[in-house]
Amino acid sequence: MKTPIYDRVEALRAWMRKKNIDAYIVPSTDPHMGEYVPEHWQSRKWLTGFDGSAGTAVVTQTAAALWTDSRYFIAAEQQLDGTPFCLMKMGQPHTPTIAQWIEQVEGERAVVGFNHTVMPASTIEEWSNQPLQYLFVGDAMDCVWPQRPPVPLNAVEVQPLAFAGESAACKIKRIMQYCRQRGATGVVVSALDDVAWTTNMRGADVPCNPVFVAYMVIKEGSEPTLYINESKLTPDARAHLDREGIAVAPYDHFLPALAQCKGHTMLLDPATTTLAVADALNGVCQTVSHRSPATMLKAVKNDSEIAGFRRAMLRDGVAMVRWLRWLLPAVEAGGQTEMSVSARLEALRAEGEHYRGVSFETIAGYAAHGAIVHYEATPATDAPLAPRGLLLCDSGAQYADGTTDITRTIALGPLTDEERTDYTLVLKGHIGLAMAQFPEGTCGTQLDALARQAMWQHGINYGHGTGHGVGAFLNVHEGPHQVRMNHMPAPLQAGMTLTNEPGIYRAGSHGVRTENTMLITPAAETAFGRFLRFEPLTLCPIDLAPVRREMLTPAEVDWLNIYHAQVRQALLPLLDDAADQSWLENATAPIN
Amino acid sequence: MKTPIYDRVEALRAWMRKKNIDAYIVPSTDPHMGEYVPEHWQSRKWLTGFDGSAGTAVVTQTAAALWTDSRYFIAAEQQLDGTPFCLMKMGQPHTPTIAQWIEQVEGERAVVGFNHTVMPASTIEEWSNQPLQYLFVGDAMDCVWPQRPPVPLNAVEVQPLAFAGESAACKIKRIMQYCRQRGATGVVVSALDDVAWTTNMRGADVPCNPVFVAYMVIKEGSEPTLYINESKLTPDARAHLDREGIAVAPYDHFLPALAQCKGHTMLLDPATTTLAVADALNGVCQTVSHRSPATMLKAVKNDSEIAGFRRAMLRDGVAMVRWLRWLLPAVEAGGQTEMSVSARLEALRAEGEHYRGVSFETIAGYAAHGAIVHYEATPATDAPLAPRGLLLCDSGAQYADGTTDITRTIALGPLTDEERTDYTLVLKGHIGLAMAQFPEGTCGTQLDALARQAMWQHGINYGHGTGHGVGAFLNVHEGPHQVRMNHMPAPLQAGMTLTNEPGIYRAGSHGVRTENTMLITPAAETAFGRFLRFEPLTLCPIDLAPVRREMLTPAEVDWLNIYHAQVRQALLPLLDDAADQSWLENATAPIN
Repeated sequence: MKTPIYDRVEALRAWMRKKNIDAYIVPSTDPHMGEYVPEHWQSRKWLTGFDGSAGTAVVTQTAAALWTDSRYFIAAEQQLDGTPFCLMKMGQPHTPTIAQWIEQVEGERAVVGFNHTVMPASTIEEWSNQPLQYLFVGDAMDCVWPQRPPVPLNAVEVQPLAFAGESAACKIKRIMQYCRQRGATGVVVSALDDVAWTTNMRGADVPCNPVFVAYMVIKEGSEPTLYINESKLTPDARAHLDREGIAVAPYDHFLPALAQCKGHTMLLDPATTTLAVADALNGVCQTVSHRSPATMLKAVKNDSEIAGFRRAMLRDGVAMVRWLRWLLPAVEAGGQTEMSVSARLEALRAEGEHYRGVSFETIAGYAAHGAIVHYEATPATDAPLAPRGLLLCDSGAQYADGTTDITRTIALGPLTDEERTDYTLVLKGHIGLAMAQFPEGTCGTQLDALARQAMWQHGINYGHGTGHGVGAFLNVHEGPHQVRMNHMPAPLQAGMTLTNEPGIYRAGSHGVRTENTMLITPAAETAFGRFLRFEPLTLCPIDLAPVRREMLTPAEVDWLNIYHAQVRQALLPLLDDAADQSWLENATAPIN
Repeated sequence: MKTPIYDRVEALRAWMRKKNIDAYIVPSTDPHMGEYVPEHWQSRKWLTGFDGSAGTAVVTQTAAALWTDSRYFIAAEQQLDGTPFCLMKMGQPHTPTIAQWIEQVEGERAVVGFNHTVMPASTIEEWSNQPLQYLFVGDAMDCVWPQRPPVPLNAVEVQPLAFAGESAACKIKRIMQYCRQRGATGVVVSALDDVAWTTNMRGADVPCNPVFVAYMVIKEGSEPTLYINESKLTPDARAHLDREGIAVAPYDHFLPALAQCKGHTMLLDPATTTLAVADALNGVCQTVSHRSPATMLKAVKNDSEIAGFRRAMLRDGVAMVRWLRWLLPAVEAGGQTEMSVSARLEALRAEGEHYRGVSFETIAGYAAHGAIVHYEATPATDAPLAPRGLLLCDSGAQYADGTTDITRTIALGPLTDEERTDYTLVLKGHIGLAMAQFPEGTCGTQLDALARQAMWQHGINYGHGTGHGVGAFLNVHEGPHQVRMNHMPAPLQAGMTLTNEPGIYRAGSHGVRTENTMLITPAAETAFGRFLRFEPLTLCPIDLAPVRREMLTPAEVDWLNIYHAQVRQALLPLLDDAADQSWLENATAPIN
């Protein structure tokens, strides 16, 4: 039986014949190059049936293929089964590049069509060394995708100055200053969270991320302009933009308006610039390539944002404590599953002030499911919880004054020796990074080994990063800084948030991850320069039941006891229920 | 009173007038872009009087300036005093670039002369955005430097296969394989240690580095050719080259011969390619930019080279033990200085088989001199040693079967608390890196913090790198891998040598550094991949007198006791003198 995917591919082929193109490229990116893509732009998912976050589809009259990376090999193989798409495993020695494959299938004179509004500008360099001819032919999906979801039109809301801590007008001044220091007189703001941060507005266009679909152009000598579908603007939002000196223009006017950049030098962030933007500016003005000023500035939180994080963490901690206290007896009583305990946690969080939803889909992985790093339980996989083994729960919430991201791995009952050793090695890694003090100028890559050295001694490692920035009521994944094995050249700075989330995953058996969100703060100024350190923002006990005490150093035990004392002191006054209170006192009691 | 520098600058200016150029650039580099430059090419030192390893001089008819980096600010200020050169401090906010300065002095139509045989090819990119006109006008020094030392003509020697472990013919085959994998059909070998490694020959043209002045060109379909002054070739060397299938051509024929690369794609290492080479190949053939194959291949030592290192380390350890045993009583007896104890150490090393000299000038810094990272005692600075405080001694030797590099910091008597704390923090850093186990693919930058985290906790840091590769009877500094704070993208591999040398320097007071040369070896293969670890090659006790025992963890004490047991076991049978033996037993006795 053929899937509907066949019809979709045939519809695209018919469109391609009309346009006289031999191949058409459908990437997973959208016009704002974000991590999460609104449904309207999920063309690759619609066309292929493959729902991973990264992948590029290419269709010719006789063949179809999808390129994705090792994270998705298994999922893609399953989802592409019974479709005309063959899977191209990126990073494997014999996998052709897209260009090589098109040449093999259609010859080197092939004409390749694409939609330049969703292609990264960097693609142009890859293409420049190839004989193939690339042609901007518009968005095929407008013609071949029936009932395509519209570009989201949800209303935006104003982020109060008390939470934002700095007016949009001030932020725009600092953005221009940043541009001038890099020889630019203007900037195109493409990333949705950059637009939201700059304007002090939030939206509901992308699940879990409080952003809205819009572009912004900021140039010396003219009003900064927000390109947005005006139906999204409440009177409140209009008044706010007016006060901040931000002009409004229709979303569709964005690309044509770039012609007005004549005489300017525009700063473009290669990570978020599409081919359409690069093309529109080509010949119009000079450009300089640099990280987006808004990305760099918003990474360093101001005092109001930090105060908001602290309030949000108290609410989040209360919800986590109430959930943890409930969890073990509930599992003992029977009938709980990964999805039911996730729902309970979300319900408890939803009781908190300023709650706006989860900051990402909760990962509650029991036993072997804990080893699947991006696991999300579905009715088909939803595992019943038994009073033994480990439950890994990675979750977070959006509050109007802060975003949270926390992972706890909980012993539901008896554990194996391997589970306890793995748990303790992850804890040692977490504490190793948490305790670090380091000189200004240090990048995440330099600190990554502090979270891994204990497990490395046991021949264990994990493939994901150790830490990322967290937005202030914005995206839970925020750059530019990261802590990971590959090199990230952004130095850590005081005021940045950073997660600390080492893990160990044993396929078919269990997974462990322990994650706090931390704040980078000044530590000391000495004859050797200025030093920074981490302060945990997350307030929630770390399960002590699985800990192998003999594997911890005295310094690690001290850290754990001090952290637990802070958690107890902060949360105890906020708990009404005596049972919650005594659970917390017990969970945070010092160990010797 | 004017220094002779004035006459030199005036001679250069007269030559510039004849050539009709407004400015002339004199860099510190030579045609082979090495770290150490033969006297013949030390034009910048001759012209300016400044003898630091890095610096560029520029002379116009009315002005003269020298650019150098922060390592040399103090030395350059002193040495340029009373010369026409003003000091340009690189990396400081208001320092002009060379081009900016020339524009200020001579206007933007200035004609700038240079000698392209000693300029890095990368310079061309810096120049391309400037209005100034750059002109290759030959080597001014040939005309203005009377009694210029000739290009060295010392005889070369053949490195026996028993030490080299692989024939030159085999190495050349592997180099060509490496080139083909990167789309090249040939390579220009410019770095002197790359030429020495490839040909299995050694020389005496550069102090401390057993290299000889030559180029090599290796191309598919023709004999690999060594461009060398033929008077350097003994009958033995000629026979060896013949056997290995390496053709010989005069050194001066190298640049013209590049015209024969027509039809090839030549691999060029940007780090060691001069403008002259890039110019000679421009329009002749395609080029690809990549790390030199010989640099990459020689970094991984073969079994014969590793065995040679082990033998050399035994000899070196014996010399160090005899020196250390002698040192304290000699200082007590009085009359010893930094230079006298260095001479003693060199004399003891010279008794070892296959000794060929020091691998770098011995750094013996007493008390405050220990805080000067690149200190080299001179008769003017030579400090008398008293039975108190710390002596930092960084030294090494060339043996025909291996190169050594070791630092020990020795308590000559009572120490301050700060000296003991600093010493112990450095030791913790050294052990932290030495104990590491890490996954294949790890780069040095990822491990650097393991050597720094203990001192970072105390607000202390050091500015130099933590480790570098060491050649096999070759340069004591070898790439491509390094362990340092800035990113070095070369992964650590089994078979590489690496120094481990954290330090603490308190200006005006004292310096501490503890350094072993280590070998990278396979550690384990697990479900998580392959892991590597370090094995110390250096065999010499680490002074325990300054150690604050209470600051060491049990794991650190274990490492120290195991290392000292290895040192004792290896060296004790090689010591003839009973006093040396009992000193070693005492120095390596386990601590609790």
